[in-house]
Amino acid sequence: MHKGCAITVGELGEFGVIQRISGRLTQGAAVLLGPGDDAAILRAPDGRVVVSTDLLVEGRHFRRDWSGGYDIGRKAAAQNLADIAAMGADPTALVVGLGLPPDAAADWLDALTDGFRDECDLVGATVAGGDVTRSEIVVLGVTALGDLGGRPPVTRSGARPGDVVAVAGRLGHAAAGLALLTAGAGAGSPELRELPEAHRRPRPPYACGPRAALLGATAMLDVSDGLLQDLGHVAEASGVAVALDAAALPVAEVLAAAAGELGADPLEWVLTGGDDHALAATFPPAVRLPPEWTVIGEVEQGQGVRVDGQVRTVGGWDHFRE
Amino acid sequence: MHKGCAITVGELGEFGVIQRISGRLTQGAAVLLGPGDDAAILRAPDGRVVVSTDLLVEGRHFRRDWSGGYDIGRKAAAQNLADIAAMGADPTALVVGLGLPPDAAADWLDALTDGFRDECDLVGATVAGGDVTRSEIVVLGVTALGDLGGRPPVTRSGARPGDVVAVAGRLGHAAAGLALLTAGAGAGSPELRELPEAHRRPRPPYACGPRAALLGATAMLDVSDGLLQDLGHVAEASGVAVALDAAALPVAEVLAAAAGELGADPLEWVLTGGDDHALAATFPPAVRLPPEWTVIGEVEQGQGVRVDGQVRTVGGWDHFRE
Repeated sequence: MHKGCAITVGELGEFGVIQRISGRLTQGAAVLLGPGDDAAILRAPDGRVVVSTDLLVEGRHFRRDWSGGYDIGRKAAAQNLADIAAMGADPTALVVGLGLPPDAAADWLDALTDGFRDECDLVGATVAGGDVTRSEIVVLGVTALGDLGGRPPVTRSGARPGDVVAVAGRLGHAAAGLALLTAGAGAGSPELRELPEAHRRPRPPYACGPRAALLGATAMLDVSDGLLQDLGHVAEASGVAVALDAAALPVAEVLAAAAGELGADPLEWVLTGGDDHALAATFPPAVRLPPEWTVIGEVEQGQGVRVDGQVRTVGGWDHFRE
Repeated sequence: MHKGCAITVGELGEFGVIQRISGRLTQGAAVLLGPGDDAAILRAPDGRVVVSTDLLVEGRHFRRDWSGGYDIGRKAAAQNLADIAAMGADPTALVVGLGLPPDAAADWLDALTDGFRDECDLVGATVAGGDVTRSEIVVLGVTALGDLGGRPPVTRSGARPGDVVAVAGRLGHAAAGLALLTAGAGAGSPELRELPEAHRRPRPPYACGPRAALLGATAMLDVSDGLLQDLGHVAEASGVAVALDAAALPVAEVLAAAAGELGADPLEWVLTGGDDHALAATFPPAVRLPPEWTVIGEVEQGQGVRVDGQVRTVGGWDHFRE
């Protein structure tokens, strides 16, 4: 289709946009009342509801020239669903506030909607409601809800000296992918292609969250600001120290290859990269961990995070300073 | 304090901003786990949770030169809490995604936070969590949650021929206030001052929502796009017509005064003004309505909204077209 023929969001109008989005969504078992009223109504069988919200702004959290609408939707959904899983809960639904430039293509909006829908599908959740408004840049206000299913929530504050520290999911892939995109490098290299792909579309290990709660995890979070910084939050909230063993950290071969290409240190990506939404958790030492989890250190008395006994300058993300 | 000395959001940094906000908030009875973890945890004693989200963008939903931070917070909270009340539920909490320019003053952020807190206080809710990020303009992603307390939800689709149509709360005040602000008129007139004030800070009749559910309301919504447009949603969702009696519409004296000043029609503000977040509901004719409700018409077979038998061109708000 010629660009001049493409229907835009502005031509659809507010209610056209809402109809177009709603027509691509299905409603899950948790949804008692979906889009179209003042509010959605969800089942909360546990009697408690877990809720997390993120605001994503074009140019800071995503770029439309680096990621298509579908990947932006997948990623925006993933980072919120991962927050629910990191409490040990099952995600039930998203509600999404959507700020759109009027010249955005309706096709792009369809792709975004499909991305939200398909990422939610992975965990049995659905988009239960939302709001659309005009904005000069794309803005996504994403709120995820979840149900604990009778399990105790796993917060950041329960780590105890003697616990093991373990991670599930990928570390450093998204950061390496972003470094490749920024350098304009490695795009043509088939063996590195998965890294920009990891930046565009994280793969949080959702099922590991509720399972960790059942295994007796004492603390858990999703790695969104970088492993060191996020484990620093666990250390601070729990009043303990975290001691990591560098040799135990999972440095994937593809990270080493990308680091060679860019003259970078792959361990830096693993320690400070944030967008993979791995889960990091602490468990009592007697817990027999399933293979999704890699033990990377232990909890000690004290404070802060050390790698092989050394305090590392904590890199990671500060939204107002970088 | 000199402007040059004012602390900014950028100087506070992400975690400084979070600490500053958290320090001004209290946590309500519904909050089992408040800000600081991957997600908040709220009580959902009903076994269902009501959830609504809005995205507010500076320049479209508010102007920092027309409204202070405190009023922006009050209004952003109010419009979401009103959505929960309009389902017949009691609001329990908000979560807020906050996009802030780094040069925003910390004092302004404090005022915004206090506005959210104080509006929530009116209904016993609190801000249970959020997210902050950098943005070139102020963006607020606000999600409200509520509990039905065993009551049936009041949707838009239950109106039946023979029901009465009634409103609670103010109509047209915010629209008249916006007209005065736009015209730069009436600012010095003490008797009109309440209208710009109504634009800055709506006063939704929160308690009327759950009470309407108990009274047997068959349909309800909060008037956010204008009475005609919103009752059009009820008519469409319920498969009925709404017939309004112009003489019964509450046109406050202050609206007539402002209309005289601007050469406007006060009834137009009442019919199409959207920012007061009044509640509009339908009730079976036998229901004895408390004095907060004003009967303005009735539900008939057919479709659409008529005023004194005439179909009105439906004004109201389309975010992509205006």
